[in-house]
Amino acid sequence: MTHQEKLTAIRNQMKADNVQAYIIPSADPHISEYLPKHYKCIPFASGFSGSAGTLVITQEHAGLWTDFRYFEQAAEELKDTGFELMKQKVQHAPEYIQWLTEKLGKDATVAADDKLLSILLGELLGQKLAAKGIALISKDYLSPIWENRPALPAEKAYLIEDQHTGQSVKAKLEQVRLVLQQQGASQHLISSLDDLAWLFNIRGKDVNYNPVVLSFALLSQDQAVLYIDENKLSTLEKETLAKSGVMVLPYQDIEQAISGIPANNSILIDPKRNCFAFYKLIPSTVKIIKDTNPSTNLKAVKNETELANTRTAMLKDGVAITRFLKWLSENIGKSTITELSAAAQLRKFRQQQEGFIGDSFTTISAYKAHGALPHYSASEKSNVEVKAEGLFLVDSGGQYFYGTTDITRTIPMGNNTEEEKTDYTLVLKGMIEGCKIRFPKGTCGYQIDAITRKPLWDYAINYGHGTGHGVGYFLNVHEGPQVFNPTANPVPVELGMITSVEPGVYRPGKHGIRIENLVNTIKDTSNDFNDFYAFECLTIAPISTKILKKELLEQTQLEWLNNYNTAVFEKLSPLLTIDEAAWLKTETKAI
Amino acid sequence: MTHQEKLTAIRNQMKADNVQAYIIPSADPHISEYLPKHYKCIPFASGFSGSAGTLVITQEHAGLWTDFRYFEQAAEELKDTGFELMKQKVQHAPEYIQWLTEKLGKDATVAADDKLLSILLGELLGQKLAAKGIALISKDYLSPIWENRPALPAEKAYLIEDQHTGQSVKAKLEQVRLVLQQQGASQHLISSLDDLAWLFNIRGKDVNYNPVVLSFALLSQDQAVLYIDENKLSTLEKETLAKSGVMVLPYQDIEQAISGIPANNSILIDPKRNCFAFYKLIPSTVKIIKDTNPSTNLKAVKNETELANTRTAMLKDGVAITRFLKWLSENIGKSTITELSAAAQLRKFRQQQEGFIGDSFTTISAYKAHGALPHYSASEKSNVEVKAEGLFLVDSGGQYFYGTTDITRTIPMGNNTEEEKTDYTLVLKGMIEGCKIRFPKGTCGYQIDAITRKPLWDYAINYGHGTGHGVGYFLNVHEGPQVFNPTANPVPVELGMITSVEPGVYRPGKHGIRIENLVNTIKDTSNDFNDFYAFECLTIAPISTKILKKELLEQTQLEWLNNYNTAVFEKLSPLLTIDEAAWLKTETKAI
Repeated sequence: MTHQEKLTAIRNQMKADNVQAYIIPSADPHISEYLPKHYKCIPFASGFSGSAGTLVITQEHAGLWTDFRYFEQAAEELKDTGFELMKQKVQHAPEYIQWLTEKLGKDATVAADDKLLSILLGELLGQKLAAKGIALISKDYLSPIWENRPALPAEKAYLIEDQHTGQSVKAKLEQVRLVLQQQGASQHLISSLDDLAWLFNIRGKDVNYNPVVLSFALLSQDQAVLYIDENKLSTLEKETLAKSGVMVLPYQDIEQAISGIPANNSILIDPKRNCFAFYKLIPSTVKIIKDTNPSTNLKAVKNETELANTRTAMLKDGVAITRFLKWLSENIGKSTITELSAAAQLRKFRQQQEGFIGDSFTTISAYKAHGALPHYSASEKSNVEVKAEGLFLVDSGGQYFYGTTDITRTIPMGNNTEEEKTDYTLVLKGMIEGCKIRFPKGTCGYQIDAITRKPLWDYAINYGHGTGHGVGYFLNVHEGPQVFNPTANPVPVELGMITSVEPGVYRPGKHGIRIENLVNTIKDTSNDFNDFYAFECLTIAPISTKILKKELLEQTQLEWLNNYNTAVFEKLSPLLTIDEAAWLKTETKAI
Repeated sequence: MTHQEKLTAIRNQMKADNVQAYIIPSADPHISEYLPKHYKCIPFASGFSGSAGTLVITQEHAGLWTDFRYFEQAAEELKDTGFELMKQKVQHAPEYIQWLTEKLGKDATVAADDKLLSILLGELLGQKLAAKGIALISKDYLSPIWENRPALPAEKAYLIEDQHTGQSVKAKLEQVRLVLQQQGASQHLISSLDDLAWLFNIRGKDVNYNPVVLSFALLSQDQAVLYIDENKLSTLEKETLAKSGVMVLPYQDIEQAISGIPANNSILIDPKRNCFAFYKLIPSTVKIIKDTNPSTNLKAVKNETELANTRTAMLKDGVAITRFLKWLSENIGKSTITELSAAAQLRKFRQQQEGFIGDSFTTISAYKAHGALPHYSASEKSNVEVKAEGLFLVDSGGQYFYGTTDITRTIPMGNNTEEEKTDYTLVLKGMIEGCKIRFPKGTCGYQIDAITRKPLWDYAINYGHGTGHGVGYFLNVHEGPQVFNPTANPVPVELGMITSVEPGVYRPGKHGIRIENLVNTIKDTSNDFNDFYAFECLTIAPISTKILKKELLEQTQLEWLNNYNTAVFEKLSPLLTIDEAAWLKTETKAI
């Protein structure tokens, strides 16, 4: 079936149901960022392979709503599919809703599979449409036309030991139950896979990059039931879970369990991280409390074991990055290196490290103008040769049994322009400000974000993405609740939270620069004013000073940079060969 | 009647009604910050004269909830009144609600005069109490026991001309009506006095410091009715209003007007700036849209006339401040100067200026340790002599026919300690960073706040108040919607908004330092990244460099300071005597 034929088949079903518009979001019933093949509905329907977007189909029009990161790719992939690119102004904003309310008349009906809508989105959509007299119903028009739709993943899951997680499942359940008690909730539904992986000390291979396993859980004060394909666990693993008070039931049984919650119970449910379909299954006699999953907040604050292991992962990752940078500097201009081959080489260096499991996301290996696309992903088609000139941006990360890494370095390849040098220096200034910040307890991400951006604002430069995101422990490379970005998200930065600091400058057609470290929140000092916190740089990899305009740095920034590079050498050199250490010595020389 | 007797009289009424708790907030039916004498319920009932607080009375307990600014004053004023000071952790937070839900049993009844509760507070209170099975009713237990309660103010109001406001009432009504249309509202109730003063180009003398007049308004697309004591306006003024399409009706008629809104109308009402009583009067057939008053947003963005006039007011204020500083420097140690006499002298200098109407708030004249109380107000009792040593903090402002000013200078009186010098320099660093900031369009107050605080955070110092507040045009010295503080308030800083920048350091028992300028948001530059904005310093008054630790300032900060002081001299010297100009020349000398 061509995409055109699929579109016709969807429209025929719509006609039969008297449905005027059909929405296909990028999601699964766990409201995941990375989807198992079974849920890759947008690539199936439209051919668009980007990771963010929404399809909206009417009889007259079919559109893909996505943001600037994907404009080029979408324009290419949507050719002859019958879908038109609809450029979104704000990332992740459901701008198609207004389009729908303007295009559709009163008494129209809109359909979407409500397993693919978060509660938040489902309610918003329902309200906005209802205000215009438009109905919202749930329909799945893809399954009937999806020949050989991939089955749900059947990969084995595995449990990780307490000594590695630093906290037992029992202890985690106790913590969550305490929050439930405080919130007056007798039941708690969890659908988000990283919350489940953390709570049950379980990992899997069901999706790319995130070591999670498809499952749900329903908790009460005396029961904890994990809904999971039972073949994913061994008998021994089930016994281990049982000893922690966790019952295992089939994945599909979750719906029945929700419908069966007894009257007069109250359920805590996270509207961002559960699907609308399940929400509607909750009996009307059950009181609903909407709030963030307690596990999301608990998981974000890493314990001592997680932090110690993460430091190990960072050393391993730093060695791989150092080898990659050395390899690049020594081979550039000698053998042919492309964006893709460089990424493959970096992966090889990571694979040499004990405990490496896989990449934590698709490596962004972006040379020259490609670097100006913040989420560029090199394909066979876009792949270009990397030469001994310009800037080469590499944003990559690894999943290690010891933790998750995420690092960006922008590598001066030679012959750099004044603009490249200035931009590089300003991004580094921002990154240093973000890393060396001291802030009072209670400070939120938007405050860290502003202080990181300031050195760029001073030069009338800004970047369109956030300054940083939370990072999991051997889990998702993007996790909440904390985030460093300009939006008014009142989540304080707590001790033990791991977050990225990654300002950038993007000049379309020219270059992109981003420099990223992961940081841990630590105690700094306490006095009559407050407790003050600071960041510990977890990422250990050299920052190039080759094209730095030293005169643009303040003394404190220069000191930070020299201290950082010195520490990188001191920590990594014992793990390197003599040759490698010598190379790193030069690379990290104080300026 | 003593306060003890009043308390008994209130408790007797409570008993008769089977009411277990009575709440007395600091508010009027306009939800004002400054109250007419008629509504000074807290001083009447308890003797506490501070401007923020709430009384809660049960049979067993009577408490005043207020924040740290008033702890000393309240402890003093509440002696032998029967009221106990209840220390609030967070300014303006209704912490007494939790206290009530913990103290009162199910089926209890709480009473409050719902004309003194904002809609927001009324609903919150109702919900929190209802969740514990407690009822909320409206009662006024003060009027029956308040002998000779002051009448509502009968001061004359006056209209100001379009050439002075830069926009006619007609044009303003049009703008508001456009917003109503966009929001789908057919009616709009306004109770907030500064919104009304702006919209109808009317001023009055009904409360201290704010040149407003008690009134309400109900707008529709074809009607605008101003509810006001008709004696406050002349026949001519009523005619002028009528020509702008404004009907004038008696103040008391507003309640009847609200109850009489026809079915199927929709009303826009600001839940923070209208009283709960009026909200309950809205017929159930009327759809309620809760949002910020359109006039609040429109008023905040000053037009060219308002800005030009404000610049005139700033020159006048700068002259007064300069004369005050010179007077202080020349008389200190020679004649006796106290906090109160200094404030009086400053007022005299302001009064010499043409167009001066009055102070825009109570002058904070705070010597040495008194400066550490951010909202200190000198009384006959607390008044101390100002000597030729330590720091003297003066935060003051004027209402001019040309605009509203608000300025803080901390004056080094001599013999300053190293700590005083460092703190002074750091506050100035923060203030300079806040003033010289460049930021992209869309930036919110919390981002400005973070960048202003950073120089203090670097030294593990913080301050407990916001960095800045919006300022009216010949109106309230505190106005929204923009605010520079750490809370997640997503209001972008728009061109033409006037806001204060006033970081501080407070060391209890030692000293307080605050330096404050008002700034206007102006265009800076536009490029591919964004439109960038900057601040124009409106306040024109010297900043002392006497105790500055120059080595702690960055070069850009030093340049800003020297440029600022030079501009102060250039702008003020033509308005000064030769003597004064000579003094200012020295005071503003570049360092």
